[in-house]
Parts: sequence; structure tokens; C-alpha cells
Amino acid sequence: MKQQPFERSKHLYTNEAFTELVKDAVRFFNGTPVHTLPPPESFLGTGVYALYYIGQNSLYKRYAELNRLSYNYPIYVGKAVPKGWRQARSLNQSRELIGRLREHSRSISLGAGLGLDDFMCRFVIFDEDGSDMIGTIEAALIKLNKPLWNTVVDGFGNHDPGSGRYEQAKSDWDVVHSGRAWANKCKGVHIEKNAVIANIQFHLQSLGQPL
Amino acid sequence: MKQQPFERSKHLYTNEAFTELVKDAVRFFNGTPVHTLPPPESFLGTGVYALYYIGQNSLYKRYAELNRLSYNYPIYVGKAVPKGWRQARSLNQSRELIGRLREHSRSISLGAGLGLDDFMCRFVIFDEDGSDMIGTIEAALIKLNKPLWNTVVDGFGNHDPGSGRYEQAKSDWDVVHSGRAWANKCKGVHIEKNAVIANIQFHLQSLGQPL
Repeated sequence: MKQQPFERSKHLYTNEAFTELVKDAVRFFNGTPVHTLPPPESFLGTGVYALYYIGQNSLYKRYAELNRLSYNYPIYVGKAVPKGWRQARSLNQSRELIGRLREHSRSISLGAGLGLDDFMCRFVIFDEDGSDMIGTIEAALIKLNKPLWNTVVDGFGNHDPGSGRYEQAKSDWDVVHSGRAWANKCKGVHIEKNAVIANIQFHLQSLGQPL
Repeated sequence: MKQQPFERSKHLYTNEAFTELVKDAVRFFNGTPVHTLPPPESFLGTGVYALYYIGQNSLYKRYAELNRLSYNYPIYVGKAVPKGWRQARSLNQSRELIGRLREHSRSISLGAGLGLDDFMCRFVIFDEDGSDMIGTIEAALIKLNKPLWNTVVDGFGNHDPGSGRYEQAKSDWDVVHSGRAWANKCKGVHIEKNAVIANIQFHLQSLGQPL
């Protein structure tokens, strides 16, 4: 077939309905019930979740203040996508969302200066075709809220890198909240704890202020 | 605040408009001009792309047959997302889509049994808010087309793992199309070439057949 001349406009997709749809899903997200971390029972599904800090650690007290009346300021937003979606395998119902929340609960239990009572969570389940929205809604919530553990403090959602990969540095999160055994095996030169704390303080100064 | 009893239905988001929106974007994708690989000129933007095989390698001749009249059967679908979106940084215009297509062009030039003339490509640019759709449309195209290099042959889109990480095995793609220097440094036990070829043949048997 003959090569056509390149015209950027022919490749540009825009659809205003999409922006509205994302807003609708975010509104739904912000209206869902808030639960303890981990949630009280297991359930099927994949989706998007947010963790809210309400504890007494002075590092994060700004979050506790902001979330006093309603849960509007997540410290972390994440997603649990269907296993094997990249390989286009059939999507059996799975427990990936509750599984991810439980994994985060273990990290928080282990992390210095943190306890499970310091957190609440919110989550939305996207079934079937809706599961294609998961990445989009996660991205929208991160852009909107700039949660501390997604933006400034790296590594909360990390997994054990596994044998042969411990040359890497401990993450920011593990520097501030030491306790995960695998993180202590990481031998790389990590950032100084004081530097992470300074970054946190700088970020939280502007949080919740009118723009 | 008081813990509410868990009710799954309160957390389940469904929106039929979303399904329609994905279909609309996929239709737009399938109607965009097809270009050589790499495309003839540079351009700004992030988005989703597909590669189509039209060459003579007997392994992939089924693709060449299926794409003879129109480009409907990609061998690979991928995405180029804005840098730093996870950290919610501002999204400057970037050249990530053309950059990714050029990177793939280098892999194909190096890979045994492949040449750039064997491929054509198609791509859609998502600007601004639309960039949140990128992951969704990539996932939809993969589910719809089950492209060989996304589903059966792993590793085409891989990057150099970097020093200290060459314990891992060479990918399926590098086993069949040897040539990338960094892949040859990977020392792990890789799958046998004949096994990958058998998987390819099995997958391509059913491609383009009525369901």
C-alpha cells in the first residue's frame, strides 16, 4: 500500500465525553463508604483504592487534620488490575483488590511509626468491561490529589525485588518506615532520612490550601 | 467515624457510556492512516500504536496474508504514556510516541529474521486529559486482537535490564530474534527456541478464523 503523507491531526483523538466519564467515576469513588484497613471482610473484584491517614504521627498530622470531617485527602492511591490482562486471558473473578489492601496492611504493620488504626480506606470495584477503566481512574485520582506516598515518598507499593536484585537502594518509604525485612536486604546507597522528611514537610505545607 | 457494614454493591461502579467510548476510540484507531516503521517524520505526543507484519518470514506469514487487504491484525500493540504521570507532574508536550516507535524500529533492525520493510504501523495521539485513556485503549486493543508479541511471545518491548540484573533469562522474543546486545548478556535459563515457535504456530492457526 502507498505511504500516506503524515498529518498529525489525522492521528489525534479527542472526546469530551471521556472527561465527563472520569469525573463521574471520581465522584462515585469519593462517595463510597470508608472502611478500616484492611476492610472487615473479603470480596471479589479488581479496582482502585485510596488510603487515608488519621493517626498521630507528627510527620503526617496535616493529613489527620484534613481528613477530620471527611475523607478527601488520601496519602496513597493504588490499583489492583485483573491478572493476565496484558496477555488477554479470560478474566476470572479474583480477589486482587482485597489482596492488595491486605498486603498494604502488612507493610503498615511492619513500618516504624505507623499502625493499622492510623488508616482508613476507600475502594471501588470495576467488573468486566469496566476493569479497563482502572488505570484511568487511578491516574485521575493521583493527578487530583497528589497523594504523598505516590508523589514525594517513593516505594510504599513495592514488592520484594527477590534474590539477585538486592543491589538496589532501599526506597524512600522504607527509609522513613523501616521494618520490611526484604527492604533491609537492599544494599544500594539510599536517600538520607532527613532529606525524605524535608520533602514530606514541604509537600504537606501546601496541601489543602486554596490555590 | 463509625465503621459501616461492608456491602459490595456500594463499591461497584458501572457505566455503559464507558464501553461505548472505548468502542469509539478503537474505531478511530482502526481508521487512522498507516505508516512505515518508523514513521516518516517526528511529532509531538503520547498515545497508543500497533505494528503490522507484512513480510515473508514463514513464521509470521499468516499475518502477512491477513493484512493484505487492510491492516486489521497487529502483531504488537503498545503505549507511550506521559513521563512522570505517576508523580502527577505537569505534562509537557513530549515526543514519547515517536520515540517508542523508533526504539521498536531498532529492535526490529537488530532481530534475526526481521527487517523494517516487513512492518507498518498505526498510532493515535491522546493529548492533555485524553492521555488518561491511553492505558484503557491499549488494553482494549490487546484484548480484541490478542497480538502475538503481546500474548504468546514475551519480551519485544523490554529494555536493557542494566548492570546487576543480567541474572534473568533472555525473553521469548530475543530467543527467536536474537540480535539485541543486552539480551545476549542475560544469563538465566531461557525457553527453547522450538518451544516458542510451537507456541507461535499454535496461536496463528486460529487467527482470523470465524469464531
